[in-house]
Amino acid sequence: MLTVLPPDETLRAKVARRLDAKTKPPRSLGRLEDLAATVAAIQRTEQPSVRKKAIVVMAGDHGVAASGVSAYPQEVTVQMLANFAAGGAAICVLARQAGAEVVIVDMGCATAWKGHPAVLDRRIAKGTRDFTKGPAMTREEAQKAVDVGIAIATELADREVSLLGLGEMGIGNTTAASAMAAAFLGLAPEEVTGRGTGVDDSGYRRKLEGIRRALEVNRPDPADGLDVLAKVGGFEIAGLAGVAIGAAARRVPVVTDGLIATAAALAATRLVPAVRGYLIPSHGSVEIGHRRLLEAMNLKPLLDLEMRLGEGTGAALAMHLVDASIRILDEMATFESAGVSGP
Amino acid sequence: MLTVLPPDETLRAKVARRLDAKTKPPRSLGRLEDLAATVAAIQRTEQPSVRKKAIVVMAGDHGVAASGVSAYPQEVTVQMLANFAAGGAAICVLARQAGAEVVIVDMGCATAWKGHPAVLDRRIAKGTRDFTKGPAMTREEAQKAVDVGIAIATELADREVSLLGLGEMGIGNTTAASAMAAAFLGLAPEEVTGRGTGVDDSGYRRKLEGIRRALEVNRPDPADGLDVLAKVGGFEIAGLAGVAIGAAARRVPVVTDGLIATAAALAATRLVPAVRGYLIPSHGSVEIGHRRLLEAMNLKPLLDLEMRLGEGTGAALAMHLVDASIRILDEMATFESAGVSGP
Repeated sequence: MLTVLPPDETLRAKVARRLDAKTKPPRSLGRLEDLAATVAAIQRTEQPSVRKKAIVVMAGDHGVAASGVSAYPQEVTVQMLANFAAGGAAICVLARQAGAEVVIVDMGCATAWKGHPAVLDRRIAKGTRDFTKGPAMTREEAQKAVDVGIAIATELADREVSLLGLGEMGIGNTTAASAMAAAFLGLAPEEVTGRGTGVDDSGYRRKLEGIRRALEVNRPDPADGLDVLAKVGGFEIAGLAGVAIGAAARRVPVVTDGLIATAAALAATRLVPAVRGYLIPSHGSVEIGHRRLLEAMNLKPLLDLEMRLGEGTGAALAMHLVDASIRILDEMATFESAGVSGP
Repeated sequence: MLTVLPPDETLRAKVARRLDAKTKPPRSLGRLEDLAATVAAIQRTEQPSVRKKAIVVMAGDHGVAASGVSAYPQEVTVQMLANFAAGGAAICVLARQAGAEVVIVDMGCATAWKGHPAVLDRRIAKGTRDFTKGPAMTREEAQKAVDVGIAIATELADREVSLLGLGEMGIGNTTAASAMAAAFLGLAPEEVTGRGTGVDDSGYRRKLEGIRRALEVNRPDPADGLDVLAKVGGFEIAGLAGVAIGAAARRVPVVTDGLIATAAALAATRLVPAVRGYLIPSHGSVEIGHRRLLEAMNLKPLLDLEMRLGEGTGAALAMHLVDASIRILDEMATFESAGVSGP
């Protein structure tokens, strides 16, 4: 695995001091100030900058979808890939607003489709296997998916992208992410499972039952990130874990999204603990498992919008706050420069 | 007082239905969807738009500042007016990012200064009187301040500004806003008073004591918005209440900010109850009184950033979310247009 050094705490403190000299009571912009200091620590500079941004949206299918855990049919995954490519999905709209490129990756969809020049074909297989009956993928497949993510993040860093967001699409993937949360955090399925994109009561019961069986059948080892990814994860989730690791290795901050992207981020920190320092939270979704995952990493949501869409939509919205924070650092006057009396 | 009609609920429902046809599970963008529907209901159109935005930042001084309730000297109010005019304050930075004009208004500063062409001089008096000894202002002065706000909002609506934010500056004004919150909500000073821009323990005790005396001496009538504004409010707070009323009368949505702007918004709803339908919350600050005021109006913060600066900084950040919401409505594909299967 790649070497990831922790962010530079000296630079974090330096930027915090610079912000204290601005014409405002110390710390009165709260967590907005932390963002600039965090980016500075990550980028190892007193002049952080996030001019070039990207959101990596990875899609994959899930064998468990056959158990009726989603309100939508499996072909929606590739239909949405086409929608991403055409610019009509929510993430396309919000990424345009954020000034972020959307990098669309097919990590392993089950439905045959003609593909699209704007979609990177990195298919590991035609969807994972049904993890209620055995592991979703082999350890080698999980490693391959992680490596794809690392390679994509590295390439984006080479193109001077300085802020990355995690996004995903995959019918059935809240079931996988909740299973990962239960495995990593040692919690019961009920404590980490919500209704995803909106299953009814019987679908929700099937979802809980599927997760329970997946954990029983596979016994994923919470201390082994790759084991959890392989047994109850998904290709897009393992890919995003790789994106987080690859970004961190290149000193690029990573904005998390909802349940699935955050499960990927947690997996990344289990593979490479120093990745935690590179994560910037975005929103807190209505999925209960999302809150548990954020708490486990001591990340507090910036936005409280009751969203539950995924795709990187929360990450795109939070990028505006990262921008705001850096503008404050760059553009605000100091007490001295503005001739304002201090306390 | 002006006539304010409630927002059009038929249009809110129509826009909500349009959003349900977009390629996402129904309601999965949560409160982001509500914003577009709210703006549509306010603007009485199925095609809401907020292209021209402004943040009205009103400044005023407070007689109670003489009691040592703030960590900063009173001359900071006019020094910050100059900083607003020069573009160096936090609100200038965040308004530039939001694409919003900053309208700076001197509603009644105590310190003599030469003024600035970019600052509207609408001084009612050289600061309010010390409300621990009697009313902060006369009822006529309060009405005059409200009228100034209405006139400014009306003029901005004439210039086709379609989204307004409330901002303020005034040494001592968290003490006034907390006194207003206690008066309006029938709560003890301890329940609505925080440390403002950062007073120490003895300053905090003076602040609580000042509010207690203000309520005893003046006995403001919670059913009479103007009485509360006159007795324990401030010129900038009464002015902002007027801005909210004037905006609502012209069907312009109003984004609230922190404790003081939200106290002004509540006062506006006590003067003209229909104003409530025109309010869009922004952030939840660390000031406990702010949370109480938002709850009293059934407004839930969109952003959770632990800010406590005021100036309209939270309003400016929330404007991005209003923009995002309308972009989603305008730009997202539908299940039909994108050929995506429904649930």
